[in-house]
Amino acid sequence: MKIGILGTGIVGSTIGTKLIQLGHDVKMGSRTATNEKASAWAKSNGIHASHGAFTDAASFGEIVFNCTHGVASLNVLHLAGADNLKNKILIDIANALDFSKGMPPTLAFCNTDSLGEQLQRAFPGTKVVKTLNTMNCNLMVHPELVANGDHDIFISGNDAGAKAKVIEILRDWFGWKSIIDLGDITTARATEMLLPIWITLMGKYQSPNFNFKIVR
Amino acid sequence: MKIGILGTGIVGSTIGTKLIQLGHDVKMGSRTATNEKASAWAKSNGIHASHGAFTDAASFGEIVFNCTHGVASLNVLHLAGADNLKNKILIDIANALDFSKGMPPTLAFCNTDSLGEQLQRAFPGTKVVKTLNTMNCNLMVHPELVANGDHDIFISGNDAGAKAKVIEILRDWFGWKSIIDLGDITTARATEMLLPIWITLMGKYQSPNFNFKIVR
Repeated sequence: MKIGILGTGIVGSTIGTKLIQLGHDVKMGSRTATNEKASAWAKSNGIHASHGAFTDAASFGEIVFNCTHGVASLNVLHLAGADNLKNKILIDIANALDFSKGMPPTLAFCNTDSLGEQLQRAFPGTKVVKTLNTMNCNLMVHPELVANGDHDIFISGNDAGAKAKVIEILRDWFGWKSIIDLGDITTARATEMLLPIWITLMGKYQSPNFNFKIVR
Repeated sequence: MKIGILGTGIVGSTIGTKLIQLGHDVKMGSRTATNEKASAWAKSNGIHASHGAFTDAASFGEIVFNCTHGVASLNVLHLAGADNLKNKILIDIANALDFSKGMPPTLAFCNTDSLGEQLQRAFPGTKVVKTLNTMNCNLMVHPELVANGDHDIFISGNDAGAKAKVIEILRDWFGWKSIIDLGDITTARATEMLLPIWITLMGKYQSPNFNFKIVR
């Protein structure tokens, strides 16, 4: 499958590399078509990896991953272009962490809104699915690294077909055993608001190798 | 031990009844000394149960539980009186859920502040410990009801001695096996912000019989 990745950070490169390993064609997009990190990533990931501007990655991908900083995501998607994202699934992994007031970061917005909802409102022709935003990026694509994968991932989105496809990706591509469908995109508020406890636990354990499990 | 309970709702009566069963003396406080729910609770819980105004419950208790609605808690504690709470542990179970804008409720404040912090700031002579606010009240005092108790409770507070005492209460009185000390009272933000996902899951499962577990 052809997949676009928006963002050149550790999340984008981890997801991108996993997708390459699975045999997909991946184009990593950034603000400039000549971004050094994107170029280095593409070079080290073989002939199925490429890079370009945000527009290039968005138009290339049949599915697009938003791996940008949450506070920049809306701007990035506008740069990528609504037409390039139209009718596509956008897997939104970002969290709108605001580091401007010091550590620990707060959320730029929450409670009555979420990044997932903002993106869906701004791009009504795109199927925004919020997921993967509640754990470290290694765990995103290797859930077996913690407790043999016996923990949960959440998913939010308005389009049932898009969610079914993303659930397939999470399960069959990334190896997630337990995927909890929370409902429509407004439930992205709930998962984005997990970040404060995630950051607190990360500080306590001095390790990102943990995840949430809902016990019933 | 003599324990004060502020609030006459399902949380206050569940905690109060458990404490009576454990052999403690419990006074339930409410806005008026003649509150019908508090009177009925005291009557059905034997000679170690009593009720009165918020001031009565606060002055009676060696330890005080805040089981009021979070949006009312600050006002309630002022009614209870700073002198009656001075040097005491206040176990803050409340969440500042705002139902005024319809369902699901949002938080009246979060992210850059928490109810736990507001109470600690307003009552600097009291040792506020935030805990028990992330699960249904039956589970608070009967963690074994779900997965044989194999799930987590969080605790936040500035005073190490007060937290040690509350950890003892959670473990030895209520039966919690896994208690995660998140740090000072600012970490109450993290647990209060779990409410949106708790409410979402409660709606999905149509049951409050679940809890969070941190898997490592």
